[in-house]
Amino acid sequence: MKISARNIFEGNISALTSGPVSAEVEIITAGGDKLVGTITQGSVASLGLAVGKPVVALIKASNVMVMTDGSGVKLSARNCLAGTVKKLLQGPVSAEVIIALPGGAEVFASITRDATNELGIKEGGPATAVIKASSVIIGVKS
Amino acid sequence: MKISARNIFEGNISALTSGPVSAEVEIITAGGDKLVGTITQGSVASLGLAVGKPVVALIKASNVMVMTDGSGVKLSARNCLAGTVKKLLQGPVSAEVIIALPGGAEVFASITRDATNELGIKEGGPATAVIKASSVIIGVKS
Amino acid sequence: MKISARNIFEGNISALTSGPVSAEVEIITAGGDKLVGTITQGSVASLGLAVGKPVVALIKASNVMVMTDGSGVKLSARNCLAGTVKKLLQGPVSAEVIIALPGGAEVFASITRDATNELGIKEGGPATAVIKASSVIIGVKS
Repeated sequence: MKISARNIFEGNISALTSGPVSAEVEIITAGGDKLVGTITQGSVASLGLAVGKPVVALIKASNVMVMTDGSGVKLSARNCLAGTVKKLLQGPVSAEVIIALPGGAEVFASITRDATNELGIKEGGPATAVIKASSVIIGVKS
Repeated sequence: MKISARNIFEGNISALTSGPVSAEVEIITAGGDKLVGTITQGSVASLGLAVGKPVVALIKASNVMVMTDGSGVKLSARNCLAGTVKKLLQGPVSAEVIIALPGGAEVFASITRDATNELGIKEGGPATAVIKASSVIIGVKS
Repeated sequence: MKISARNIFEGNISALTSGPVSAEVEIITAGGDKLVGTITQGSVASLGLAVGKPVVALIKASNVMVMTDGSGVKLSARNCLAGTVKKLLQGPVSAEVIIALPGGAEVFASITRDATNELGIKEGGPATAVIKASSVIIGVKS
């Protein structure tokens, strides 16, 4: 598979909750990170998802927010991955931030250049990737 | 909290609908705007959400569309916030648009440069921010 | 209607599944493509959606991923539209890709410049647009 999604994590399904339309999939990645994604129940059926099954989780960089200070607030976003800024690339309007996680994985975030300045994002500094569950795509090897 | 999400609105929960996996949260912001977000039922429980509770709604700029003429069409997007273009910043591919709402709030949108040209977006002109409920993150003070 | 969403497809609802909070809408477009979107049940009611009804599906370019090789993996993303790269526009950080579908429609994707290089995206080459159902907005003529 070759896809533009900058974030592709291998892992295994650790929990699965089904509703009439939506389903919630919890994954433990190879690096030990926990990811939660919401997909349609139709995809759960067509992919044959079940607890324990090996999967990949795909997340587009533009769906990743970067938080440099999480004090004082608890978020509904189910995925908050704390790490260190490995690389910052600034364009005139957009910017790309790569966050290295303790388990060895890296998270790519596309955010605005303004945000990188206001948050004081710099290489080597702490940062948390914040990802809403609805932004996660699940893939299985066919 | 310091986070790259360009849109952070303070408000109070005015309605809450729960399903087995998803939940819908309606918020009235300090500026009098109504926002609707869909989050996981798991987050409703972990954040202790209830009608009346003060919350913040976070929306990434890349999840905001800009509409300059809404005539003739009704959209499923639950959040349509009408205002005036306060600022337009164009890069070679991307552009950032800031829309000022009547209640005093501002909405940041990241769209393509092409779209700003085709829509004729200009500072001082009317514009509506269109945001799907699934793009809204809810936060509570901890 | 004038809106920044780069992707607007006309079609008719071919299937509709309702849950307590979410609903899944399947559309057959004028070009013969099938699109699946998840919206809130509240929008199904307010728009009066039903099988057979003519609608438009809107998708922001930043919610479209580009896949150049789908072998070996099956994705939960409900929308995978295979076509040919018609145009590639690269900025310093972002890039825009236009994919022409066999039925005549075009799909706009905003991805990172890095991704276009790594995937070897070039005009005339094959590419598949991958879109999560939660990124689709439904509109009806009013």
